[in-house]
Amino acid sequence: MKIDVVFTPSDVESGRKGGVCVVVDVLRATSSMVTALENGSLGIYPAMETAEALSLANGTDVLACGERNGVRLPGFHLGNSPREFTREAVAGRRLAMSTTNGTAAIRAAMPFHRTFVGCFLNAPAVSSYLEESGQDVTILCAGREGAFSIEDTLCAGMIAFGLNGHMTDTAKVSRVMFEALQHDIERTLAESQHGRFLREIGFAEDISHCARVGTTNLIPEVFSTGDSPPRDLIIKLIVNR
Amino acid sequence: MKIDVVFTPSDVESGRKGGVCVVVDVLRATSSMVTALENGSLGIYPAMETAEALSLANGTDVLACGERNGVRLPGFHLGNSPREFTREAVAGRRLAMSTTNGTAAIRAAMPFHRTFVGCFLNAPAVSSYLEESGQDVTILCAGREGAFSIEDTLCAGMIAFGLNGHMTDTAKVSRVMFEALQHDIERTLAESQHGRFLREIGFAEDISHCARVGTTNLIPEVFSTGDSPPRDLIIKLIVNR
Repeated sequence: MKIDVVFTPSDVESGRKGGVCVVVDVLRATSSMVTALENGSLGIYPAMETAEALSLANGTDVLACGERNGVRLPGFHLGNSPREFTREAVAGRRLAMSTTNGTAAIRAAMPFHRTFVGCFLNAPAVSSYLEESGQDVTILCAGREGAFSIEDTLCAGMIAFGLNGHMTDTAKVSRVMFEALQHDIERTLAESQHGRFLREIGFAEDISHCARVGTTNLIPEVFSTGDSPPRDLIIKLIVNR
Repeated sequence: MKIDVVFTPSDVESGRKGGVCVVVDVLRATSSMVTALENGSLGIYPAMETAEALSLANGTDVLACGERNGVRLPGFHLGNSPREFTREAVAGRRLAMSTTNGTAAIRAAMPFHRTFVGCFLNAPAVSSYLEESGQDVTILCAGREGAFSIEDTLCAGMIAFGLNGHMTDTAKVSRVMFEALQHDIERTLAESQHGRFLREIGFAEDISHCARVGTTNLIPEVFSTGDSPPRDLIIKLIVNR
């Protein structure tokens, strides 16, 4: 079992990949996705463009959600704050979600055999699921606007920490970082470059939400629908142990 | 004072930079450069192409050195093993050096105001010199063939560890990694992806050499000569305290 961590979506090499991938965008897309599915959403379409998300939405059984520059877009039903994805808001509905970093990362993961969605909320469940599967694992950090982010790498390190196998240099660094900062996750998130930005624009509570570890055993997976974009992919739950 | 770490040369954003840069290629280019200058070399021309290095060399006062795939090239006087850069071999001579990662990293650092050359051998000296200068610092890891390398990031973390200022996410990760692995530097190098490659091709002793910390106070700087490439840059010592 080989364990790799990729710091930004553009670092995914081209060509079909044998193993499985976990996409991590702690602040906040994958935390929001896990929260939405936990609260009964039937599935999430990852839309690259905001117009695509709007075109899929109808305001009743499909809601447009996401952000640009951290805030909800005009005409969107929900932003990208995981605290918005309540049972009341999302149960029984699908979501068409477009975020700055997270949706691009999910699409960058398509060359892999299977793709899962991870964050601190489900990191222990993801890690134990992957360890049991025994397949090569790539943890793909969404990063921030194409650049490295400490919060995604820390979460990648938590997932890697639970895996046994041959670690690449990036996987080792992530794991070492998790070992060093595991008792300081919320502060690391709050003091990260993206965390400081979110606090400045009034989303400090989102950071506390996203820093919670292992609150759920739910693991979302990205499925191909056979439909044309942006309905070509849908994120649904596969595991509920 | 802002402290940043850049994991690969291609991550250097374009445009003129205000602060100073330290290029780090622990295995082995910057370790070889520091060793050569310590042993009396008068200066090093960083040549991108092997043919450029050969064109500058005359076998007496200018020697061609460097590697491709880790090994010395045909017609070159020296390879890229720091143990080759003895006083006998290099004293009083200039070197035209072309390596896979290191020379490209030095050229990628040219947008910065000043550029220095660092490795574990001089990391404490570099760190204290930068701390006294008070300028913004970017530590540029050469990486390996465009990808992240744990050994360069660990050394960047050692340099960042000695600096006080605002750390970017990448600088924090590097520093945390150094704090966690500072008593395990040689093993981390030996077990890195590049370290394993070097051991496979018979350069295990180079790793021990490059893992030594603070053996010298010498700091090389990259100077523009005003000449045309590949003689446009020369690396010389600035500090010998």
